[in-house]
Amino acid sequence: MDKQLQSLADEIQAASGNIVADMHLTDVRILDVYTETVYPGSMVIKNGKIVAINPSWSVQAKQVFDGQGMLAVPGFMDAHVHIETTLLTPEALASVTVPWGTTTMFVDAMEIANVLGIKGLKALLNNTANLPFRIFMEVPSRVPTAPGLETTGGILGVEEVDQLMDDEMAVSLGELDPSKVLEIKEEYLRKILSAKRRNKICNGHAIGLDWDQLNIYATAGLSDDHESVSYEELAERLRLGIRALIREGSTERNANRLISGVLKHHLPTEDLLFCTDDKHVNDIAAEGHISYNIQRAIDLGMDPIKAIKIGTINAARHFRIDHLLGALSPGKFADIVLLKDLTHIRPEYVFKGGLLVAANGKLNREITGDYPDFLKSTVTLSPELCPSVLSVPAEGNKAKVRVINLYPDQIINFATEEWLDVVDGVITVNVGDDVLKLSVIERYGKNGQVGSAFVRGFKLKSGALASSVSHDHHNIVTVGTNDQDMYIAAGELDKCQGGFVAVDNGVVKGILPLPIGGLMSCDPANKVMQEIDALNRVVRDMGSELPSPFMSLSFVSLPTVPELGLTDKGLISVKDHRIISLVVG
Amino acid sequence: MDKQLQSLADEIQAASGNIVADMHLTDVRILDVYTETVYPGSMVIKNGKIVAINPSWSVQAKQVFDGQGMLAVPGFMDAHVHIETTLLTPEALASVTVPWGTTTMFVDAMEIANVLGIKGLKALLNNTANLPFRIFMEVPSRVPTAPGLETTGGILGVEEVDQLMDDEMAVSLGELDPSKVLEIKEEYLRKILSAKRRNKICNGHAIGLDWDQLNIYATAGLSDDHESVSYEELAERLRLGIRALIREGSTERNANRLISGVLKHHLPTEDLLFCTDDKHVNDIAAEGHISYNIQRAIDLGMDPIKAIKIGTINAARHFRIDHLLGALSPGKFADIVLLKDLTHIRPEYVFKGGLLVAANGKLNREITGDYPDFLKSTVTLSPELCPSVLSVPAEGNKAKVRVINLYPDQIINFATEEWLDVVDGVITVNVGDDVLKLSVIERYGKNGQVGSAFVRGFKLKSGALASSVSHDHHNIVTVGTNDQDMYIAAGELDKCQGGFVAVDNGVVKGILPLPIGGLMSCDPANKVMQEIDALNRVVRDMGSELPSPFMSLSFVSLPTVPELGLTDKGLISVKDHRIISLVVG
Repeated sequence: MDKQLQSLADEIQAASGNIVADMHLTDVRILDVYTETVYPGSMVIKNGKIVAINPSWSVQAKQVFDGQGMLAVPGFMDAHVHIETTLLTPEALASVTVPWGTTTMFVDAMEIANVLGIKGLKALLNNTANLPFRIFMEVPSRVPTAPGLETTGGILGVEEVDQLMDDEMAVSLGELDPSKVLEIKEEYLRKILSAKRRNKICNGHAIGLDWDQLNIYATAGLSDDHESVSYEELAERLRLGIRALIREGSTERNANRLISGVLKHHLPTEDLLFCTDDKHVNDIAAEGHISYNIQRAIDLGMDPIKAIKIGTINAARHFRIDHLLGALSPGKFADIVLLKDLTHIRPEYVFKGGLLVAANGKLNREITGDYPDFLKSTVTLSPELCPSVLSVPAEGNKAKVRVINLYPDQIINFATEEWLDVVDGVITVNVGDDVLKLSVIERYGKNGQVGSAFVRGFKLKSGALASSVSHDHHNIVTVGTNDQDMYIAAGELDKCQGGFVAVDNGVVKGILPLPIGGLMSCDPANKVMQEIDALNRVVRDMGSELPSPFMSLSFVSLPTVPELGLTDKGLISVKDHRIISLVVG
Repeated sequence: MDKQLQSLADEIQAASGNIVADMHLTDVRILDVYTETVYPGSMVIKNGKIVAINPSWSVQAKQVFDGQGMLAVPGFMDAHVHIETTLLTPEALASVTVPWGTTTMFVDAMEIANVLGIKGLKALLNNTANLPFRIFMEVPSRVPTAPGLETTGGILGVEEVDQLMDDEMAVSLGELDPSKVLEIKEEYLRKILSAKRRNKICNGHAIGLDWDQLNIYATAGLSDDHESVSYEELAERLRLGIRALIREGSTERNANRLISGVLKHHLPTEDLLFCTDDKHVNDIAAEGHISYNIQRAIDLGMDPIKAIKIGTINAARHFRIDHLLGALSPGKFADIVLLKDLTHIRPEYVFKGGLLVAANGKLNREITGDYPDFLKSTVTLSPELCPSVLSVPAEGNKAKVRVINLYPDQIINFATEEWLDVVDGVITVNVGDDVLKLSVIERYGKNGQVGSAFVRGFKLKSGALASSVSHDHHNIVTVGTNDQDMYIAAGELDKCQGGFVAVDNGVVKGILPLPIGGLMSCDPANKVMQEIDALNRVVRDMGSELPSPFMSLSFVSLPTVPELGLTDKGLISVKDHRIISLVVG
């Protein structure tokens, strides 16, 4: 408290010209989001904050940065992102996102929470002083995603959510599964009330909801949604008071269609925001991050100032942190992007808190995270695990089983019922017909449970793949042509404490260690991108034609999207939300 | 908590059509502030909240209200108002404001806080369940206004502000005296941090500040101002991230000039709000309340939807309660105004929380407040008070004294130095030259202090006036031609526990009791208006030409506006912020 007081007093002193400022950013054209004008000026910075614009007195500062007449705009904000699915630490991710001007992310880190609960979440997100961008926490609302149907490392119940909600960096309850509201589940209503009680917002996830369902969703207090794919969906959500996040991720590319609709219908833009949700690192590197959403809007004909507001002040207002961020005015953090002009969103310089963090497309220094050991030690397989644990016993010569069938680029699947041979009392795979074994192996040292099933779509001709990224419980998921290679693959992930691995005939053909929670690499972005490319080539050599086999593997067992899921507890009927028998009849 | 949970569950049930709703408002044209369009529909209401708009299912409701095709807009919001200066209780005030569509007021009740501290503030503001409008609390930042220079009944120090800030109805720190920030007073910085820590905003009061001072003010975290009188001032404030409240009070009529400027310069309107600050009841009754600000904007050429947004959603967003109010969408309170059309802001019906509270310009039932006794027992004069305590001793035949000179319609004054006769060892008034005695008598039973001085401007030919409304300390202030009548007048206020009184030659000529904190009447608005008119006529008969003699009396001693103030501790030099001698040299 007294530190806060001293800081505030210092900032006022600097704003008054009584003490030397930290930085003087001179000769810029300042984008004023409030009056929607650009005016020439300079900014005085102290303690990372803007404390004066164009003062009449002579500025004394430790450092002067000559803006060379460039346009100064607020740092960009990603209003919804899952940081772990990039496979990178925040530090490594920064190397691709920050040069594109993203200085703030609103992060729903539900993955690490499923692995390590509050402890993991805080270790990942609170370690940000050194980061070149800011993280705000959307407190994960669904850990576990499928209560009772899966074993997870961490659980965020009502009490844990309530505790996290007090964290200074917590701005909202993270995206809530609509069914929890539509079915009036007490636990989730309590989580909503936990946010409301603190005047924090609740993020939505209103995928495919119709008008009646949206009424219910809005009544429950959900105030945004990032799942609109058509203008009509977007307009319905706005009308009901649900702010619309225009998402431009790697697979979900909604910006063109939504922005075109907004422009065509002359919709006001103050309730729109931009997000990426899930965007691959190589896509970010190639085309941009939130900068890309803004650029799309401008290219489609939106007034550039309105487009920049969507990516800055609108997000700050939505999350109720507009006293800190989102505009270039006194009292706000000096998160500033310098552009050559208003229509080309290609940052020349990026500042976070008045410090230069990126220039000309590159971070100005390499940053590595310092993560505690417990974050890197999250895989504990049962000592009793052996290949035969993965086998599925049956009587007779044939068994009719339910098979999970992949769609190549989607996370949903469909179920078929098929006959497989039974040899020596166990059901066998059918490699020729691409029916392989899929197993989920509990990895938190809690119960050693294993669920096994059959899957079509991976097309491996031999060997096995395994991953410790396995939504959303993140147990070990392994697919293979034989139990022995699957067992070895899982064992390799035990050794390296998580990652992606390909094993063929007992030999490790490729491996990407992801030691942080079994979800993220400790390496820089470039190295991870290269390693994953190499690993994908290995898998292709093993017969798979999937573009991203490990992403497919990490989603194939998800127990909450149709039609089938698989957890350490067994096969799941998503529709009925219960465990069902693998063998039919 | 469990009550909240049950309510939320009920609202979701009603939103789903599973249970009977409380009200169905049918056949309205709904103003959607988000898409800025009007569309036909109906609203389902439960627990005072909108839970569904245009559901596809058949609505069952306890009550149906036929909107007859009228336009439904959100209830209007006064973004800054001092409720006590109307001399009315919230209940009585409601009878004039609510029929004009004002369903929410953001109230800085610093007057009652000066009298009774937290206890008085809560008793006045928390007693709102029965009210036909909502009150949110701007936690008063300056109680006392002149620390060390006056005795007040209540004090809101850092701890008290911190405690109040936790109140559910507290949305901000109330308007802060700029000097406290410019001079970096620790107490006030701590109060600012108290609000910031809870993500609540800080209201400004940036009267006359120049650009450099505004930089400091914004840096300190003040995020609004209601003192702009020119477009240039307004634009400067916006540019620095300070939201502009367009005030249309009784004496401060800023709407025309500010709105004309906004329109002329095509300024975006999302950072504008409307307020009244101080508006007399008769003006409200005659022309409207926030409705009047909206009407002015429309008449000046603003798009009516934008004008209505300024008076609704913009205020809700500013105070971060837009999840509760400011729009007609599910999850929001059903505070609804029905209009015949979009350009005539003359409400036909007004609903608060789904209950009809006013129709055709009148409240639909009379409401009386139920205030605890301690609120009505706040005047305790010293038993040692006698006429001679008011006398100012001096030696010789003449004394040169500082005289406070009124400006008729303003709260500032100017000082002169003049010779007065000394008779029997005391300085005498000069009725012929309109130099009268002014005394401030401590009224909280704390120390019995009396400060006396001389004043020009009241023009009484005989008798005395007294008031327990005396900004901001609210001791008894009395002006008169003789100590005896002043003493009697003060005594009358002791008897009736506060009010306005006129005494002539020992006889009470007129009195308006204001027993609630010595600030507010218990009577209805009409009765108070009549009584004050009668009292003003009495004062005119006593020789005064002032349009509002008791308002002048209540401000004349204010120790924080130039040039002189008077408190129970003595004469105050406002500039030097200290007590000075009445007699010169």
